Amino acid sequence: MIISTIASHSSLQILLGAKDEGFRTRLYVKPERRAFYASTRLTDELVVTEDMSAILKDDGIVIPHGSFVAYLGLERIEKAKARFFGNKRFLKWETTFELQDKALDEAGIPRVRVIEPDEVEPEKLYFVRIEGPRGGSGHFIAKGSELEERLAGLSEPPRIEEFIPGVYLYVHFFHSPILGRLELLGVDERVVIADGNARWPVKPLPYTIAGNVGVALRESLLPRLYDYGLAFVGSYEKARTARNHRPLRSPLCLRR
Amino acid sequence: MIISTIASHSSLQILLGAKDEGFRTRLYVKPERRAFYASTRLTDELVVTEDMSAILKDDGIVIPHGSFVAYLGLERIEKAKARFFGNKRFLKWETTFELQDKALDEAGIPRVRVIEPDEVEPEKLYFVRIEGPRGGSGHFIAKGSELEERLAGLSEPPRIEEFIPGVYLYVHFFHSPILGRLELLGVDERVVIADGNARWPVKPLPYTIAGNVGVALRESLLPRLYDYGLAFVGSYEKARTARNHRPLRSPLCLRR
Amino acid sequence: MIISTIASHSSLQILLGAKDEGFRTRLYVKPERRAFYASTRLTDELVVTEDMSAILKDDGIVIPHGSFVAYLGLERIEKAKARFFGNKRFLKWETTFELQDKALDEAGIPRVRVIEPDEVEPEKLYFVRIEGPRGGSGHFIAKGSELEERLAGLSEPPRIEEFIPGVYLYVHFFHSPILGRLELLGVDERVVIADGNARWPVKPLPYTIAGNVGVALRESLLPRLYDYGLAFVGSYEKARTARNHRPLRSPLCLRR
Repeated sequence: MIISTIASHSSLQILLGAKDEGFRTRLYVKPERRAFYASTRLTDELVVTEDMSAILKDDGIVIPHGSFVAYLGLERIEKAKARFFGNKRFLKWETTFELQDKALDEAGIPRVRVIEPDEVEPEKLYFVRIEGPRGGSGHFIAKGSELEERLAGLSEPPRIEEFIPGVYLYVHFFHSPILGRLELLGVDERVVIADGNARWPVKPLPYTIAGNVGVALRESLLPRLYDYGLAFVGSYEKARTARNHRPLRSPLCLRR
Repeated sequence: MIISTIASHSSLQILLGAKDEGFRTRLYVKPERRAFYASTRLTDELVVTEDMSAILKDDGIVIPHGSFVAYLGLERIEKAKARFFGNKRFLKWETTFELQDKALDEAGIPRVRVIEPDEVEPEKLYFVRIEGPRGGSGHFIAKGSELEERLAGLSEPPRIEEFIPGVYLYVHFFHSPILGRLELLGVDERVVIADGNARWPVKPLPYTIAGNVGVALRESLLPRLYDYGLAFVGSYEKARTARNHRPLRSPLCLRR
Repeated sequence: MIISTIASHSSLQILLGAKDEGFRTRLYVKPERRAFYASTRLTDELVVTEDMSAILKDDGIVIPHGSFVAYLGLERIEKAKARFFGNKRFLKWETTFELQDKALDEAGIPRVRVIEPDEVEPEKLYFVRIEGPRGGSGHFIAKGSELEERLAGLSEPPRIEEFIPGVYLYVHFFHSPILGRLELLGVDERVVIADGNARWPVKPLPYTIAGNVGVALRESLLPRLYDYGLAFVGSYEKARTARNHRPLRSPLCLRR
């Protein structure tokens, strides 16, 4: 049996876990990534190709992640003959702010408030985000009074959020229907270019992601974030039972 | 034999270490923490209760930590019949700034200077801390000229310290009287809400702790911090011998 | 067989790796470092001495690192009879900005631009660095208009660089001529005193290094940084073959 996926940040975790559990692995990579992956112990087989759709006919167990939608489109994934691990229909929930908000709201997990243009106050700060898997590039903070000008230059639809200052953490879970258990696997903080201002504020910098750092969460936050995970899985299970879909058997990450 | 403690940040380390060494573990938790702890491999027995004083009659080896005092009070701990690991009298040194300062002074370890109200200079910065295990919430930085107003609103006695900018590290040790050895276990940096200003300074934010990140300390600092650990243990051993108390056999953390 | 080196940040990694692989280890340390190293499992033999040149007659396998040049000087290292692992002539490339720039340029790896005094613009920011293994102390950011005054007080020759704000990452590699492979081992971010400004900017603080934090690099950056490593090794191999030197068999770190 072989585990197959497409090279991306998630694939690093999928491949490492698969090797640790004794599986063979196959990775679909673009030519410029070949040298790096060939130097690691992560993959048994490298499929070097510009066209990621080759994975749709893979004969292994395909593990999808967020980048599948960007590379292949939802429709081709849902029609694919290859054997996917987990629920392919879950992928679309990653693709739009609207579906993400809906998932959090249905689970009763608090989320950042979305601001309509006519609610903007000149002196308040807002966080503007651009939809899609862009690794944070394009996001920015701006005062209400600057918003109109900043938004005018954008080619993609932005979303205006209230700006909540503080530390942003990314909580990873794994839900196992076999063990009947949700596990909190870890917590990350992102390293973004704008962190360059930590040493001395120079000018607003891009929020483009450079990496992640593991955080040992404060104990009193663990039960609270774990309960959010339970609420999310509970809400999902209710919805998927109603639609006769498969149970959630996969890692998941709750994040801002 | 079973290792027993109360859920808190320290308990995560106590339980993980106990399981790694093959002990059975028992944890006293409030009901809202049950779901999280039940999902981990940290505990063999969960005692779910609102009243932590049940641990005072525990039949295992009780490992105390800073939260014991907050939950149970010093007097009940010192009178408890349960078998405590380590020196119960050591706990009170965690509870007040005065005793913490005294311990550092007796060991000759440099510490931040405490400022008396009549020493405050208007243009200088000060760090104000509130006593007790509050996870950093309530602490703030202020200019001397703002201090009077900021202090007026406080319900608990604050402490004014000189503000020393820089990176604050937390050094963990373990002292073993059996091996006759002090070990430096690791170094942490805290993640606090105010770190949200790293990307762009917005306004002063709370110093409430969100988590910790492990740091690989610069080598030249290791011997210096290790010597502080030795000085602390030496000073403690001198004091406890004079009072005929037990030796220090426990982890300890030196921190600002 | 015994692995010998001089205490320094690199030695922590050398010793830990050597012990993990089952080697005996010998460390040359100054008296003030003895207590710390004696408490660890890193060393089988400690040579406590003020004079590090004793290592030049060591009968083990000596693993050199950047601090060797500061302690012993290049000439004595190159003439030493002891058996060094790797290419002793490689050490001098660590000692001057000029050679570092040359190495990067020959490999075609982009680097920060060095600014000549007559190119300085008053409103731009510059990063001034002082040569040698100083752990970042003495480096500073300044506006062009402040540069003349700031540089006047320096006793050592500075280097003026364009200031590039953002996150600075340190990428570790190992090149094995036996396996014919370059491995990307990990990525670090430095913790410097100036990071104290993350919570609230107070005043420019020193860039003195306090430690490192491991970073899980964003996947899209991995192939790019790996290719820089390949380019560096390729350029080195070309140069050393022309001079009939030994192949590069050692860890290396590319950093700003």
